[in-house]
Amino acid sequence: MSSGTLSENRVFLFDSTLRDGQQTQGVDFSVADKIAIAMGLDTIGVDYIEGGWPGANPTDNEFFNERPDLKGAQFVAFGMTRRPGRSAENDPGLAPLVNSAADAACIVGKTWDFHVDVALDIPRTENIDMIGESIAFLKARKSEAMFDAEHFFDGYKANPQFAMDCLLSAYDAGARWIVLCDTNGGTLPQEIRQIVSDVTDKIPGTHLGIHCHNDTENAVANSLAAVEAGARQIQGTLNGLGERCGNANLVSLIPSLKLKTTYDVGVSEEQLKRLTSVSHMLDERLNRASSSNAAYVGQSAFTHKGGLHVSAVEKDPKTYEHINPEDVGNRRHIVVSDQAGRSNVLAMFRDMNINLDVQDNGKMTTLLQRVKDREYEGYSYDGAEASFELLARRAFGEVPKYFVLSRFRVMDDRRWDAKHNLVTESEATVRLDVGGNEIMEVSTGNGPVNALDCALRKALLPFYPELEDMVLLDYKVRILTPQDGTRAVTRVMIESGDSTGRRWTTVGVSPNIIDASYNAINDGITWKLFHEKAKSI
Amino acid sequence: MSSGTLSENRVFLFDSTLRDGQQTQGVDFSVADKIAIAMGLDTIGVDYIEGGWPGANPTDNEFFNERPDLKGAQFVAFGMTRRPGRSAENDPGLAPLVNSAADAACIVGKTWDFHVDVALDIPRTENIDMIGESIAFLKARKSEAMFDAEHFFDGYKANPQFAMDCLLSAYDAGARWIVLCDTNGGTLPQEIRQIVSDVTDKIPGTHLGIHCHNDTENAVANSLAAVEAGARQIQGTLNGLGERCGNANLVSLIPSLKLKTTYDVGVSEEQLKRLTSVSHMLDERLNRASSSNAAYVGQSAFTHKGGLHVSAVEKDPKTYEHINPEDVGNRRHIVVSDQAGRSNVLAMFRDMNINLDVQDNGKMTTLLQRVKDREYEGYSYDGAEASFELLARRAFGEVPKYFVLSRFRVMDDRRWDAKHNLVTESEATVRLDVGGNEIMEVSTGNGPVNALDCALRKALLPFYPELEDMVLLDYKVRILTPQDGTRAVTRVMIESGDSTGRRWTTVGVSPNIIDASYNAINDGITWKLFHEKAKSI
Repeated sequence: MSSGTLSENRVFLFDSTLRDGQQTQGVDFSVADKIAIAMGLDTIGVDYIEGGWPGANPTDNEFFNERPDLKGAQFVAFGMTRRPGRSAENDPGLAPLVNSAADAACIVGKTWDFHVDVALDIPRTENIDMIGESIAFLKARKSEAMFDAEHFFDGYKANPQFAMDCLLSAYDAGARWIVLCDTNGGTLPQEIRQIVSDVTDKIPGTHLGIHCHNDTENAVANSLAAVEAGARQIQGTLNGLGERCGNANLVSLIPSLKLKTTYDVGVSEEQLKRLTSVSHMLDERLNRASSSNAAYVGQSAFTHKGGLHVSAVEKDPKTYEHINPEDVGNRRHIVVSDQAGRSNVLAMFRDMNINLDVQDNGKMTTLLQRVKDREYEGYSYDGAEASFELLARRAFGEVPKYFVLSRFRVMDDRRWDAKHNLVTESEATVRLDVGGNEIMEVSTGNGPVNALDCALRKALLPFYPELEDMVLLDYKVRILTPQDGTRAVTRVMIESGDSTGRRWTTVGVSPNIIDASYNAINDGITWKLFHEKAKSI
Repeated sequence: MSSGTLSENRVFLFDSTLRDGQQTQGVDFSVADKIAIAMGLDTIGVDYIEGGWPGANPTDNEFFNERPDLKGAQFVAFGMTRRPGRSAENDPGLAPLVNSAADAACIVGKTWDFHVDVALDIPRTENIDMIGESIAFLKARKSEAMFDAEHFFDGYKANPQFAMDCLLSAYDAGARWIVLCDTNGGTLPQEIRQIVSDVTDKIPGTHLGIHCHNDTENAVANSLAAVEAGARQIQGTLNGLGERCGNANLVSLIPSLKLKTTYDVGVSEEQLKRLTSVSHMLDERLNRASSSNAAYVGQSAFTHKGGLHVSAVEKDPKTYEHINPEDVGNRRHIVVSDQAGRSNVLAMFRDMNINLDVQDNGKMTTLLQRVKDREYEGYSYDGAEASFELLARRAFGEVPKYFVLSRFRVMDDRRWDAKHNLVTESEATVRLDVGGNEIMEVSTGNGPVNALDCALRKALLPFYPELEDMVLLDYKVRILTPQDGTRAVTRVMIESGDSTGRRWTTVGVSPNIIDASYNAINDGITWKLFHEKAKSI
């Protein structure tokens, strides 16, 4: 991977999810997480995977005991320059890097005179020696040594001569990459471009990297500006993970560079198709919902809502899509909304494999009117596709009446129990008509909605055993002030699932939260029965 | 606001949260939302507020009936060029714009030949006439007419002559602004800069706007690149709301332009300080958690962990902060160490004007432990300052016991009434001890929480007439999985207000939603009584 044999067009990708990404508030990777994420990164074709800081904590020590089975990427250990007043050979911080299973090492050092004076309080010449000696020491022991120039842009603005001397100390000692860090994240693209361009007068761009933070929401653009100015390595993280506002997001940078520029990022078409799944894998590991509006990989990235847009996309996707979603492993989504016209509704039918006689203009007009009326009441079918499907199928007369609710009653009771604890209990009774049978059931729950849900299933299960594997996965509430402005209504969204792994979301609206919840549960159960092709009793 | 009298350095801010932001999946503003958001936008000093599309849906029709009471911003109606084969005077789409309460109008039209040929299927000359005639028609009737050049960058790359002819048609007809739209969001900053620069050869930058989408995570940088190339109006949204990956985020652009460039965005220092609160207000309206890693306004944007960073920041904040957080209404957050926790709590006390004897280390340690325990349970005091204040004052023994709840019972009943309507009724009974008196009361409500709230006040009012003017303003529910991961809990936030215009927010957490609601209501009432200096009975 020596630079001499490669085109000047080659831009190297350096992932720091496992090191700088770990600085994110609330993120704490286990060794198993680190292995899984490293393997994922390897499959999308990054050049370097920085795994952490051996010597800094037990997790990183363990992770660096053994090299993960990477096919293409180099495994990098992070550390810092030797301490003041020591030799590199005797530095307790550099030894764990050398002894680790890493292929290469990347060390951080100061380049801003203010930090050297105020934070380190050492002579500036000693700082320059620390950089050069540490790099020379590591280069002799690992395949590559790299230098992260902390606070480089602030340092260069304050004292360009000193900042450059620090870089040259690393470069002259044989650093493969000198990485210019915008540590505080406050530099704007125009300035990044100008300063990187200045640096290329002294150090070839094929040895310069860029490391940006997103404090002005420009980390991606700053990385691109640095490449434009000559830098050929980009440091970033999956999904822009990182402290404060995050690091440069490689998930956005990779497709932009590969699909929209002439740079070569060494990522194949097949590797690019894995991007969405690797991005989502990281969120799964962190136990958090993926950002739906993420560039390229978000669920909304290729979602069309407005009616005019949808009909144009149907004619030719490039009218409203900047790339083909499949190229990054994503797909197109069509949603329904107030603005929805006929073409949105038809596109949704196709998405849901709903076969309806849409030639019937009368029924179609009725359906569109119902959607508008419901949305005026406070219903929202964005993200509640199961309720939308039922609304449509009901308008077309397809949905049987599986059961009719005659009454429910829910009671919540907070009182002192026999052991002198304050407890709150919820209990629900339901009365249903199921094919002429009057059924009454009662259940407790850990809240009123849960109690109502349990009572309803208890009543229905003897008639509809298909409901056995259905579970309530998520419950969301929003209070709305609808257009009439006089009283608040409650909108409840419920996500249900079953043993096949299917998930479906339904919506209910009412001034009363329990009533709204019932409406959403009712749709959830009805959707399940419809798709199980249950026979109406 | 004519351009002739203004410096070429002035960059105008055009907010489209209420129009293009409404295209976001899951976003559905009510008229009340639109009014509140417009008022918020006005306080941060944007120049234009685009409110929606009169004539397109009932919400926007109602919103445009009356001009919101904006102090500085112009109120803009969105629409599209006249239809093919009609005169502007007879166009059913333009009439609602003219008849609306808007000060100015902004209309979208095609500039990409491919769209004219494929989507509209009309002669290209007709498209050019549609633009010029519509602009001339609106300019004669509103203070300003603006033209959104849809797909301009794709159009310019495909056929620069035609794209420019479209712009010139609007310009020659008197458009105040010609806004270059990267509708599909796929253009990278370098190309934006180049193309905008080309356009300024024909149309002065003081008449050019930029409208970017975030599909490559470059919307902010693309807007900056356009300004660098001469454009002087930026269209964007609060928090980057918008379809797919969102629009350019004005919340990131405003402080970058004001604090880091020499452009004049017409935003005062006082207005800039409101940025964080207006950004969070939008999230509250959307009932979603604010993004903690948002540039400038995120809770993590100025978060520092213990150790070296903290001591360096204490020596001089600019070591690790790119701007002063107070400039945008945000604050520094220090996490991890107990010592840091202490300074956080003290900072919150200062914020709330709470005077406590913080020299008492024992009480302080108790309070810190309580905050930690409560946060582990799922409590969050961000945005629930009244509950935090009570927690602190209780730890310091300052809050009297105004009443003790012995029991509540809430019942929700859905059934057929005498007129054969399906109705749902909620009824609550409470049993309280108020200074040794056992009080029992019952009330109905339009939902279980409302019923409980009413019963509680009915019971307390004879003892505490101070509660007369207190009202429940907002109610929010979120389902959480706390750190122990075993069961979901419900977090309820309640905003209360009184006749003085004060508003205060309290929080309650429990596995049972009614119980969580009671906890929040209890804090709300207690806070009011404490601040009225009510005498405990």
